[in-house]
Amino acid sequence: MPATVAVTFEPEGRTIRVAPGETFLRAAQDAGIDVMATCGGRGRCHSCRIKILKGTVAPPTIMDTVQLGHEEVREGFRLSCQTPVVEACAVMVMPPIAEGGHQILSCAHDFRADSRVGLDSGVEKRFVKARLPAEEHHQTSDVEETLAALGGGAGEDVPLDVLRRIPTLLREADGAVTVTTFRGKVIDVESEDTSAHKYGMAFDIGTTSIVGFLMDLDTGEQLAAVGNLNPQAVYGGDLMSRIAFAQFNPEALKKLQVRVLAAINAHVKEACDQAGVSPAQIYKVVIVGNTCMHHVFLGIDPTHVGLAPYAPTVRSPIVLPAKELHLRVNPNAAVCFLPIVAGFVGADTMGVILATRIYDSPDIRVAVDIGTNGEVVMGSRRRLMACSAPAGPALEGAQIRHGMRGAMGAIEKVEIGGDVVCSVIGAVPPVGICGSGLIDAIAKMLDAKVLDSSGLLRVEERDLLPSAIRDRLIERDGERQFVLVWAPESGKGEDITITQQDVRQLQLAKGAIYSGILMLEQVMGVTNGQITELMLAGGFGNYINIASAVRIHLLPELPVERITYVGNAAGLGAQMALLSETERERATALARTIEHVSLAARPDFQDVFVGAICFPGDEAAGLLLSGAE
Amino acid sequence: MPATVAVTFEPEGRTIRVAPGETFLRAAQDAGIDVMATCGGRGRCHSCRIKILKGTVAPPTIMDTVQLGHEEVREGFRLSCQTPVVEACAVMVMPPIAEGGHQILSCAHDFRADSRVGLDSGVEKRFVKARLPAEEHHQTSDVEETLAALGGGAGEDVPLDVLRRIPTLLREADGAVTVTTFRGKVIDVESEDTSAHKYGMAFDIGTTSIVGFLMDLDTGEQLAAVGNLNPQAVYGGDLMSRIAFAQFNPEALKKLQVRVLAAINAHVKEACDQAGVSPAQIYKVVIVGNTCMHHVFLGIDPTHVGLAPYAPTVRSPIVLPAKELHLRVNPNAAVCFLPIVAGFVGADTMGVILATRIYDSPDIRVAVDIGTNGEVVMGSRRRLMACSAPAGPALEGAQIRHGMRGAMGAIEKVEIGGDVVCSVIGAVPPVGICGSGLIDAIAKMLDAKVLDSSGLLRVEERDLLPSAIRDRLIERDGERQFVLVWAPESGKGEDITITQQDVRQLQLAKGAIYSGILMLEQVMGVTNGQITELMLAGGFGNYINIASAVRIHLLPELPVERITYVGNAAGLGAQMALLSETERERATALARTIEHVSLAARPDFQDVFVGAICFPGDEAAGLLLSGAE
Repeated sequence: MPATVAVTFEPEGRTIRVAPGETFLRAAQDAGIDVMATCGGRGRCHSCRIKILKGTVAPPTIMDTVQLGHEEVREGFRLSCQTPVVEACAVMVMPPIAEGGHQILSCAHDFRADSRVGLDSGVEKRFVKARLPAEEHHQTSDVEETLAALGGGAGEDVPLDVLRRIPTLLREADGAVTVTTFRGKVIDVESEDTSAHKYGMAFDIGTTSIVGFLMDLDTGEQLAAVGNLNPQAVYGGDLMSRIAFAQFNPEALKKLQVRVLAAINAHVKEACDQAGVSPAQIYKVVIVGNTCMHHVFLGIDPTHVGLAPYAPTVRSPIVLPAKELHLRVNPNAAVCFLPIVAGFVGADTMGVILATRIYDSPDIRVAVDIGTNGEVVMGSRRRLMACSAPAGPALEGAQIRHGMRGAMGAIEKVEIGGDVVCSVIGAVPPVGICGSGLIDAIAKMLDAKVLDSSGLLRVEERDLLPSAIRDRLIERDGERQFVLVWAPESGKGEDITITQQDVRQLQLAKGAIYSGILMLEQVMGVTNGQITELMLAGGFGNYINIASAVRIHLLPELPVERITYVGNAAGLGAQMALLSETERERATALARTIEHVSLAARPDFQDVFVGAICFPGDEAAGLLLSGAE
Repeated sequence: MPATVAVTFEPEGRTIRVAPGETFLRAAQDAGIDVMATCGGRGRCHSCRIKILKGTVAPPTIMDTVQLGHEEVREGFRLSCQTPVVEACAVMVMPPIAEGGHQILSCAHDFRADSRVGLDSGVEKRFVKARLPAEEHHQTSDVEETLAALGGGAGEDVPLDVLRRIPTLLREADGAVTVTTFRGKVIDVESEDTSAHKYGMAFDIGTTSIVGFLMDLDTGEQLAAVGNLNPQAVYGGDLMSRIAFAQFNPEALKKLQVRVLAAINAHVKEACDQAGVSPAQIYKVVIVGNTCMHHVFLGIDPTHVGLAPYAPTVRSPIVLPAKELHLRVNPNAAVCFLPIVAGFVGADTMGVILATRIYDSPDIRVAVDIGTNGEVVMGSRRRLMACSAPAGPALEGAQIRHGMRGAMGAIEKVEIGGDVVCSVIGAVPPVGICGSGLIDAIAKMLDAKVLDSSGLLRVEERDLLPSAIRDRLIERDGERQFVLVWAPESGKGEDITITQQDVRQLQLAKGAIYSGILMLEQVMGVTNGQITELMLAGGFGNYINIASAVRIHLLPELPVERITYVGNAAGLGAQMALLSETERERATALARTIEHVSLAARPDFQDVFVGAICFPGDEAAGLLLSGAE
């Protein structure tokens, strides 16, 4: 073993021993020090950057220069994923761009007013007065008397921990107990009448964020909505990065699993504290999430999910007692995972399908969930098809030079007339651009002819542009850039630009979604004209400018009134399955009938995709391809 | 808190801090130092005795003198359950009388030759060749392909740990895997063909001993039989002592549970080592035991089992995965508890009923399981009745002055002619008397008129006896005694006697069993003449002299040829339920039809019991009662 050296990580101030040659990122992760690594440590973003405070600075790699620029490199910044430790040193872990304003799409649907969703959660609580075993009915047991009071049932199904509590409970309350069942099986017994307290939680585990909803199972009321970023992000921002992290590595899988579990348990506590509810009275939990999140939460190696043919280990709707998953709700609560359709079309898509009722539509409708991994569902009550489109995190502002999430300081809207006018979330000086801002900017740059339809920044033709615009179209550090905000107006102290590389990232991302829609149209034999509604689902879809999304061909050219926002439909679908076993059973039945279109497996997909990454206008696929990374 | 003092326990040599006033027994138990306490620390036996080596000896209590005699008390011996710690001291924990020769009744039944027991264990292993998910069948999953190869099944039932292993297993072996199911549900998947290895274990958890049998589920062959004393004995020899120990005390219950679990896990290992079998290939476990052992093993507080009306918490046939019970076999092995009939008529009695096929008998038969807690089952294919008779541990040699288990040095047979002749197990100098020896001795003492039918040692009439016998009938330390072995011939260096108190203990014990039989006869309207067979079940029953047992009215006066030994029928019944689901289901059905006769609840029981504790001859119930403790 080589001698180790001491490395201090600020601002935490922890010093650890590291073998020279190991990267700062790996050393930090092994020691449990959080360093954000959105791209999974492949040098594709700058979320993991550190500043060397003391000790020798390793020479920059090409990745450092590309991602950080010459200036930051000179100041001692490095990508921790690319930089090896050489000697004892101290480094500062740079905080990720402020996430304070992260919004939860709370999707507070009023189920009490919606007669289409029955309140049949499967959870029943009944206050009964059980007889205590006595001489005159001596051939009995505590469990039998309890079940008899309930009207019958099988003693062999009572969970062991309930069996252990029954003798004392029955006698403490002289037989007056509340029995909780799920689908007829006993899951809890409490003394006295607690039948008014019957709660459940629905979770949507996204690659980027995790949201949870605490519901009253009796009334359908939403008591709390909680959410936060998925803490697995430190191991990679997109699915493939996380799969690569966990690949054939049980230790790494365990880390991912523990992180999501801890987040969910924190959500349970937060929601219960907010609503004044005891976690022990949460009897049902419904979880949706994409295939990778689903498998990781269950502790199933997602390696093969990430390799062709992208087969899940299990697709069926799993139900497990909370204790087996270490979820801090009632230990016998039924934790229900909605089924997976196929490949990356996961339980979250099932949630979208439930919520949008696309399965019941007389006409063709389309649901598009735009996220790190996008999903498209198309069809009607006659036939449903689905595909997944690996968009990557660019649409969420990641791997974009000045990208950030839709939080305070993010440019969300761009106008280009005589000059560029940006609208900023929170009306503060801008510090970056979020995904919806990027889409808007690109659309306006196309209109303003800053960008051509192949995606090239038109530096050569800049003289044709108005002067204020022309000055913004520059080449710097060998890369074409378009300055949205000049340094004096920037909250970051430097120009906020969109680089040629950023445009390419966006093209790949939007092309993935768009080609997914086109492929389903093609397989189903449907034209744009036949689509009566295109629904934008997901946290991101909710914020984009529809006209801009159509302008850049993220979405097909439909009349804008046919394109609607449906909010966090996956989360809403999870809530529906929580409140109603009819809805949960519907998901199980639907999962078997939906036809999965595997884009990668279709020979005609490459053609469609190459067309889809262009912007409308002259066909310039050849040009584009040579420009793409 | 009072200041504590240091107490050293030899031979272990551990020194612990003890609050003055606490008993040595309690202090030792709290610290995890094993001190045998057969009577549960009530001063009723001498198994917990210690010798004070250093420090002040507390004055003896009356219990010390009664149990240990003046001489031992003078030498510094004390009952640790009665003696409080007063100051820093060192004590020697006396080893229990050697148990090396403890016998397991192995009940090696040849199931292969017994066409009545089908080999339908419910466990199936099938070697299949599963397809790996591929592009051309992309709408699938690892689990579905595995189940499809098996001919179908539901993915939602596959245990989580199997789900976690499936992706790697399938690909390692290119789809060639062996799938194990129990009643059609997947419990394991292994790579390659392991279908020849399909094992199970049957356990009989008795108050005194635990025995286990490793079986080949395919052939019915018994591969190993292992057994040992129940290590819970340090907390009490009989059921009531152990219930008292655990009563309303979750910590104490945990101690009992952990002890029996550790013993069973040791048995699993021992049996597997003997047979060269992997514990992971044990897929089914059947457990029988009395109600208290059953509850304690499941971690259910047995308090109420020990209080009128002695109601169990649960009677139904529980099946749990091994992992939930921390049993070190396959984690998803089905651990099946046979059902409980009622009160103390437990799962062990169900085993006896299965093994003796009493439910299928055209004529009246009786099965008697003689143990610390005896059970009696009577009936035919028309009607079955059962009761439990709390005999206490006297019949196993406990709470008898010179009592010991049936091991090397135990007097097992007594002849009284002109003098007393004792047969000793192992043909060594005698060191004590075991239960079967005690029954034989009492029978012969009755014949020799050393004892009258009320149970009184006839000291007043000793002059009527032959001289060698007369000299043995003495009063010493204020108690009547009969000397079986004089000190010079004794391996213990002192006289081996049967005291008046010993006779009383035996009378209470045998009276309990006998009155159970009488009560069932009475309730069922059956006479001795109608009983075509009386079967002695259990480790103890196997060793007693039938003529002597009838002579003392432990058993009713039937022609001796109608009384048979059936060995460890409870263990045999467990094996049958292990090998055959038909038999296990039969137990479930039978448990619902057997009529439980609660002796304590019957107003006529006191009369019957008082008669039953006498010996045959002149009725002397009144006399006896005043003589009994």
